[in-house]
Amino acid sequence: MPFEINIGPNIRKSAYFDATVADGVRSFSVYNHMYIPGNFGDPDAEYDRLLTGVAMWDVAAQRQVELAGPDAAALAQYLTPRNLSATKVGQGRYVPLCDHDGWLINDPVLLKLDDQRYWLSVADSDIHLWAAAIARERQMDVQVFEPDVSPLAIQGPKAGEVTAALFGDWVRDLRYFAFRETDLNGIPLVLARSGWSKQGGYELYLTDGSKGGALWQAVKDAGRPYGIGPGAPNDTERLESGLISYGADMRVQTHPANPYEMGFGPLIDLTSGHDFVGRVALERIAAEAPARRRVGLVLGGAPMQPTGHPVDLRLDGQTVGSVSEAAWSKRLGRNIGVGLIRANISDDASDLTAALPDGARAVQLAALPFA
Amino acid sequence: MPFEINIGPNIRKSAYFDATVADGVRSFSVYNHMYIPGNFGDPDAEYDRLLTGVAMWDVAAQRQVELAGPDAAALAQYLTPRNLSATKVGQGRYVPLCDHDGWLINDPVLLKLDDQRYWLSVADSDIHLWAAAIARERQMDVQVFEPDVSPLAIQGPKAGEVTAALFGDWVRDLRYFAFRETDLNGIPLVLARSGWSKQGGYELYLTDGSKGGALWQAVKDAGRPYGIGPGAPNDTERLESGLISYGADMRVQTHPANPYEMGFGPLIDLTSGHDFVGRVALERIAAEAPARRRVGLVLGGAPMQPTGHPVDLRLDGQTVGSVSEAAWSKRLGRNIGVGLIRANISDDASDLTAALPDGARAVQLAALPFA
Repeated sequence: MPFEINIGPNIRKSAYFDATVADGVRSFSVYNHMYIPGNFGDPDAEYDRLLTGVAMWDVAAQRQVELAGPDAAALAQYLTPRNLSATKVGQGRYVPLCDHDGWLINDPVLLKLDDQRYWLSVADSDIHLWAAAIARERQMDVQVFEPDVSPLAIQGPKAGEVTAALFGDWVRDLRYFAFRETDLNGIPLVLARSGWSKQGGYELYLTDGSKGGALWQAVKDAGRPYGIGPGAPNDTERLESGLISYGADMRVQTHPANPYEMGFGPLIDLTSGHDFVGRVALERIAAEAPARRRVGLVLGGAPMQPTGHPVDLRLDGQTVGSVSEAAWSKRLGRNIGVGLIRANISDDASDLTAALPDGARAVQLAALPFA
Repeated sequence: MPFEINIGPNIRKSAYFDATVADGVRSFSVYNHMYIPGNFGDPDAEYDRLLTGVAMWDVAAQRQVELAGPDAAALAQYLTPRNLSATKVGQGRYVPLCDHDGWLINDPVLLKLDDQRYWLSVADSDIHLWAAAIARERQMDVQVFEPDVSPLAIQGPKAGEVTAALFGDWVRDLRYFAFRETDLNGIPLVLARSGWSKQGGYELYLTDGSKGGALWQAVKDAGRPYGIGPGAPNDTERLESGLISYGADMRVQTHPANPYEMGFGPLIDLTSGHDFVGRVALERIAAEAPARRRVGLVLGGAPMQPTGHPVDLRLDGQTVGSVSEAAWSKRLGRNIGVGLIRANISDDASDLTAALPDGARAVQLAALPFA
């Protein structure tokens, strides 16, 4: 029997909350202290819409941390090991954030709104506290706060049709992670080509939370000819596509990982001389052979149930890694997962097992993405 | 129809998760990125046990932020406006934390384990990130991390009987917030006289998460003669008792409040000269007349349903404050709530209303606590 979720005032409702309830949301999770829909009662249809049609998602829980002021650019650059010097207004950048020991603490997309105004579109940790502490302790001239911004994602192969129907054909020319400030019949928003799937699409960063219901309805209306329906970030699709989920794949308090382990090495610039949080640690880590690496996993046996928690990867009776998340992929006809494993274990290792609650299963390593 | 909660690997399961499932937990919320039980299917009986008997709660989501090292005391003091100079090993202290602008960002209990080791037992925000950023940017010699600590609360008028049966009569002599490191048949823990209710009780800070099931069972067995049962932090009791809930009553991103507004003025020491985050801002705020004050509220009409979100307080068509949370109190036979209101509105104000989703209700101000 599924568990219920408490709806209480300590967790925020999104700007689309009432609209998702009206459209039959069945489950929620919590992300950045906000309710986020999990499913609308028909997970298979929701997956199929994402893969073959178009889906609309309330991802308002992907909160923004705004950096505004004369030192906004300096703070953005200090927060990430990625070199931002070539980033232009209207461009987004995937920017891993590390703590002073080089552990990942979030992996946001950075949006450069103007030379003195940036958004970090954050995964599930309180980066507003982190960024504010650093800005103020360094006496930088920058405000750090959470603006009234509520992303609504339109994802799937027909997302372009729906978004073009709403905003015009110019949206098709946006490059990935590019964005533009615009409006929809007076509903102000930032339109970005982005989203947490590999099926293509857009995110509408609504900048007036009082208009969530109106925006939801407008997208629903425009999407009707394309069979749009409500959905949510999809765990199976993210495993197939090899997307990273901060909180599931790593979390600094409980299962820390550094950016080299997670495959972010190419994003880290240790040569330009720019200073950033964790630089000393990452220089040391980069000089060592990595201890672990991120891998795809194929788990044997019948279609599995999600465990809801990470499980150990074992070899010869020893724990050699962990499976962050795994699920049955109907599309691939296999149980697939992602995890971290000791770097000295080769791609063709045999005798690996995953310690699932209902027993050990044989595991083969696989390249990411799966699809 | 209630909503379901997604059980996924991005949210942590507590050390007592399996035990609470076995004991019939029906709902969860999420707190500090961890599932926390909401109820076990019989809210009235759970409330009654807290008020007249004894309840056991999985409050492992009340995570600890450990400060360890030569500068641990200096960091603890820098993080809070409360003067810690007289705090002894074995004492707990309620320590509001502010950001550099004087807004509250958490209200933990600080436990002094030794001169170089402290825990902040935190409400729902990522203080480990905040404290680590400050420590490292100030180049303090202190480690900041989340240790393996999982509090289990025993609350209610018979909590002393149960806890004494487990640990001995010495527990009755502990003063409020005092604690001692001990063990229960080899299960290591810190025993504190504390808990998020006004019914009295203890918290067992388990320091080996692998022993959650064993500790849960031991408490259950010892409590059986006293009618113990599982429960959870209780919203109605907290309203009756006037307890503060960070996230519900204030949250820096969305509904910030300063410590003077929340009634923490007596805890703030601006005279001793110790430096702390937000000092300059709090000096300015202290010199001004406060703009708002925390109040109790009695809402007219029939027993109300919780709204699950804050609602506006109105007077003469204007918004003059907000109700953080309100609920029907069976014990008091009234709808009660807490909130913040403009300081110039007097205790006997008439014509105040609360904008509930099902219509406006008359509101009277009341002193806290209610009971």
